[in-house]
Amino acid sequence: MNLVIALGGNALLNPRKKSSYETYEETVNSTCRELARIIREGHRVAITHGNGPQVGDIMLQQEKAKTISLPLDVDVAETQGQIGYLLERGLYNELEKAGIERKIITILTQVLVDPKDPAFSKPSKPVGRFYSKSEMLKLPKSYSMAKINGKYRRVVPSPKPQDILEKGVIKLLFEKNHLLIVSGGGGIPVIKEKKKIRGMEAVIDKDMTAGLLAKTLKADMLLILTDIDGVYLDFGQESQRRLDKLTASQALKYLKEGQFREGSMGPKVQACIDFVKATKGAAVIARLKDAYKAMHKKAGTEIGYL
Amino acid sequence: MNLVIALGGNALLNPRKKSSYETYEETVNSTCRELARIIREGHRVAITHGNGPQVGDIMLQQEKAKTISLPLDVDVAETQGQIGYLLERGLYNELEKAGIERKIITILTQVLVDPKDPAFSKPSKPVGRFYSKSEMLKLPKSYSMAKINGKYRRVVPSPKPQDILEKGVIKLLFEKNHLLIVSGGGGIPVIKEKKKIRGMEAVIDKDMTAGLLAKTLKADMLLILTDIDGVYLDFGQESQRRLDKLTASQALKYLKEGQFREGSMGPKVQACIDFVKATKGAAVIARLKDAYKAMHKKAGTEIGYL
Repeated sequence: MNLVIALGGNALLNPRKKSSYETYEETVNSTCRELARIIREGHRVAITHGNGPQVGDIMLQQEKAKTISLPLDVDVAETQGQIGYLLERGLYNELEKAGIERKIITILTQVLVDPKDPAFSKPSKPVGRFYSKSEMLKLPKSYSMAKINGKYRRVVPSPKPQDILEKGVIKLLFEKNHLLIVSGGGGIPVIKEKKKIRGMEAVIDKDMTAGLLAKTLKADMLLILTDIDGVYLDFGQESQRRLDKLTASQALKYLKEGQFREGSMGPKVQACIDFVKATKGAAVIARLKDAYKAMHKKAGTEIGYL
Repeated sequence: MNLVIALGGNALLNPRKKSSYETYEETVNSTCRELARIIREGHRVAITHGNGPQVGDIMLQQEKAKTISLPLDVDVAETQGQIGYLLERGLYNELEKAGIERKIITILTQVLVDPKDPAFSKPSKPVGRFYSKSEMLKLPKSYSMAKINGKYRRVVPSPKPQDILEKGVIKLLFEKNHLLIVSGGGGIPVIKEKKKIRGMEAVIDKDMTAGLLAKTLKADMLLILTDIDGVYLDFGQESQRRLDKLTASQALKYLKEGQFREGSMGPKVQACIDFVKATKGAAVIARLKDAYKAMHKKAGTEIGYL
């Protein structure tokens, strides 16, 4: 089977807990242990990952150290290096233990977005830390800020991914059955302008990019792994219930009804719908530690064509 | 011609000047303009780069922000993302302008070192910022520190590169004539221990890794680009003179006489000698802005087999 697996950034590094490198490493390694169970069955696998907590840390670090302040596209590139390495090493060790020889390659990935994407006129994706009002007033005037629970947070555009610039090589290596780690953090957001590539202060939703990657690689399955065990209706209410399976059309209906939270379950379900409708493949949203069962459709929520 | 080009980290981001992102970007882009002159002649090219100032910034940032403190191997991985992206984008734009279609790919690269390398028992490579004595005393006890001009600086081992873990894919893509950006910062230093890969708090000299890469790719030329216009005898003295050309044997003689500074021109010359002796190819050390002329042996210092 051809598989694209998307790992949640929060599932790798908990942004709510003060964490240590040892804990981070352990979480990545146990993730890799679970992924190895899938890989040892011989599937072609491309892995992508979120980077929310990691990119937030990098932004905070630059602010505090007063070294060169890099724009968000460069920060995303740094997280592709950081997380790519940790996953690559973790996977190598797990596969070696299982006696499986597969090449593991991380490719730096730029993802093209449309400069006319409506997202650019209404930044909505919160990034980085919370600021008090007085701190907020000292930030660059070009930043868009949102007020959340009396604090302020920077918001950036979250445009739709249009194309993966490195797709030729990614396809080639996928067909050679190498394990790929690509388009981390949704990919480095770039636009083409007068034939030139320019980086953007934006964040592409990593699940939307995972969906695009899955279509590009003609995957049979898109597996979105996160910190919740599936898709819920009435989430957070007394009547909440988890769904085992639903069709893309049903999922679209619920999405339109506002059942899934924006910036959270919403884009995951949207990415699954897009993928399933384009390819008639299957998509599963599940908890990271249930990855193996989810791939066999024995955990999480399946979104299928029929 | 098959070419391996090594770019100095300092040549991309001046660690002595308070720099801005705009200046950094401009330097990278003008480097790419010079490299494009070489690439447009149709050579196969693999590029590697240093990361001294960049990794120093990242270390300082983590210290000041008190976020997760990542070890040096992970920091190197971050710089491969950061610098790889900037180079990739800069090259794309320059080649597009020249009407040349070449795929440009950055591969995250782990480089194997020997845990028994003598470097591990005598850390010698200064990394990161300078500390006062009182600051120094608050650092982790595991750090080795060197006293330099009354200040303290962290020193880490600089083991020799033994093998490039991703070499299979690097070779494959090089043969397909893709432009590669690989083994940045000398590569992420790892050891194999009981069949497991483990990251090391070390820095591999990027020129030594460039030499290994050039041998691995059976390059015809190793081009080391830096901020000085070639190899000097009696450097810094009144009698200093630049050499146009020398043989590997002559270079080795001068190296043994202590003509070339450790951690600076020393490893560059050593990398050239190793490469030239192993392959009978040519090596050139030159100023970054003379890259094109240097490739045609019209600038810099050539180290040849005969």
